[in-house]
Amino acid sequence: MSISKPIRIVAMAKYLPRQVSSTELEIKYKLPKNWSVENSGVEYRHQISTENNGIMGAKAADLALEKANMTLADIDMIISAGATYDYPIPNQASVTKAEMKDGHKYHTPSIDIDSTCLSFVVALDLSSKILDGKQYKNVLIISAETASKGLNISNWETLTLFGDAAVAAVISFDKESSSEFIKGGHRTYSEGVYDTMIEGGGVRNFFSERPYDNEFYSFKMNGKKLLRMAKDKIPEFMEWFFSDIPYTMKSTDVIIPHQASKIGLMMFKKMFDLKDSQIKETLLKYGNCIAASIPLTLCDSIENNEIKRGDLCFLSGTSAGFSIGGVLIRY
Amino acid sequence: MSISKPIRIVAMAKYLPRQVSSTELEIKYKLPKNWSVENSGVEYRHQISTENNGIMGAKAADLALEKANMTLADIDMIISAGATYDYPIPNQASVTKAEMKDGHKYHTPSIDIDSTCLSFVVALDLSSKILDGKQYKNVLIISAETASKGLNISNWETLTLFGDAAVAAVISFDKESSSEFIKGGHRTYSEGVYDTMIEGGGVRNFFSERPYDNEFYSFKMNGKKLLRMAKDKIPEFMEWFFSDIPYTMKSTDVIIPHQASKIGLMMFKKMFDLKDSQIKETLLKYGNCIAASIPLTLCDSIENNEIKRGDLCFLSGTSAGFSIGGVLIRY
Repeated sequence: MSISKPIRIVAMAKYLPRQVSSTELEIKYKLPKNWSVENSGVEYRHQISTENNGIMGAKAADLALEKANMTLADIDMIISAGATYDYPIPNQASVTKAEMKDGHKYHTPSIDIDSTCLSFVVALDLSSKILDGKQYKNVLIISAETASKGLNISNWETLTLFGDAAVAAVISFDKESSSEFIKGGHRTYSEGVYDTMIEGGGVRNFFSERPYDNEFYSFKMNGKKLLRMAKDKIPEFMEWFFSDIPYTMKSTDVIIPHQASKIGLMMFKKMFDLKDSQIKETLLKYGNCIAASIPLTLCDSIENNEIKRGDLCFLSGTSAGFSIGGVLIRY
Repeated sequence: MSISKPIRIVAMAKYLPRQVSSTELEIKYKLPKNWSVENSGVEYRHQISTENNGIMGAKAADLALEKANMTLADIDMIISAGATYDYPIPNQASVTKAEMKDGHKYHTPSIDIDSTCLSFVVALDLSSKILDGKQYKNVLIISAETASKGLNISNWETLTLFGDAAVAAVISFDKESSSEFIKGGHRTYSEGVYDTMIEGGGVRNFFSERPYDNEFYSFKMNGKKLLRMAKDKIPEFMEWFFSDIPYTMKSTDVIIPHQASKIGLMMFKKMFDLKDSQIKETLLKYGNCIAASIPLTLCDSIENNEIKRGDLCFLSGTSAGFSIGGVLIRY
């Protein structure tokens, strides 16, 4: 159902580490020329050198605060929304906060929300519920992801697909603005629970019990099954999502999908007969940046004036688990 | 500020793996007899054998649903609230859901919230904001923690202190009940960000770059500094927490503190001059079970009739990061 709450994305900012071209990767790992653009749909991605999630996230967060004309003193909660982390303990938000300009000055509560690739979408959804204009006036969401460490070098599909990035957004309860949060929701389909995973490095396969090997400690996905599930479940999810609100997906001004893969994006456009101008893509220049993909695409669309205040924006994607989610906002 | 929302803990349940006595540990690791009880304040803890977070969490969750007279069909969101995880990807909630009796039958959205030891408290706080009696009527919070894998065998303090456990709670929006959510809040003090950590196994020290060694991939804490920070910051946190609500800590019926350590619990009681009957302790029989400690102590207190409906309960603790948090509820 529509809640129409006065929630506004006040400002967004990104941080990108070093750009790595597909040509560079193809030479380094002995891939055929143009394999990446042709198969993964990725020409450039960014990869950390001396950075990590905390450093990238803090840079994006400090810039977003500056753009919002705020300091950390104005923020009532920091949410780190992502799948990757600098340390198993403490949580990422605490690490990122400590790297921020005023991180040691203010005692802003710092929590992590993980719904893998949908983490930003879920964090935005939950923020809309937390923000009340009283205890919570402004929330800072940070999606910082380092995909480049967990890649299997013999799996060309994932090796060329993923990128690193950080994006931050200041979200406010603002009664005076025309912005609104309309609906958020997601579903987890357990038949796909183990089709996207990193096997090693948790309780089930602890470091001490499974010596490091590149494949076992790298990201892997059952691409064909995931596409089949997406084809099967996305229509029923969208039917549910738009069933009780006075909007349709086609009537939205802008759709920001997760930049999951070239074939995934093509399927999504075809499935709902969407216009190229309506759906935003950054896969070619950034790759799939896990939870940072959706906010990164949103941030770029705002910077390039492809989204204006008052536009109806639908953010949606799939994630490991297997989940489908979305939020509908008036930007 | 007090929000007094009709939020009710409908049911709780726990799952405990094999019990391990301190005598057993002392013999195995050649510790002096009674070292654990005398120093860590822990006589028994539980440790997984064939279980993991997903299996333990699912057992606790299925039992909590049964006690609540519900099935997964009634649950609008599953929140896995903890610091440890079965796999780096997917998120823990998706794994735990897949292990539940009806996990494959329903598409309940499944997300993780991580604020290390405060994860349950934060999840309860956020649930109170999410629950609206419309889109969200019932939320299932699961704290399943496996501490036993990440222990440094040459650090007797942590080796004897930690235990494994899972606890689940069904939280509902219930206008008819006398239960209420009064206030939640927490603060993150970055001066303690790296005083509680597992160094290896994330982006900063990736598996491939740092071969396994017990100390580097185990939990470590700067106990003396943490106690000093707790002594310094807890009073100011409590002053803030109770400043704008018509309650004091002394006027609460029951206090459920995080079972951080023997000396930490002693300090907390002394700091606020609390009665032994008011403050609940399970450290001796379960050890410190990370985020599962607070709900485990709450669950036992309910089972043992030490908490009655209508009682004013304060759940509070510290966590890595360094955070202090709490929620005040009328049970």
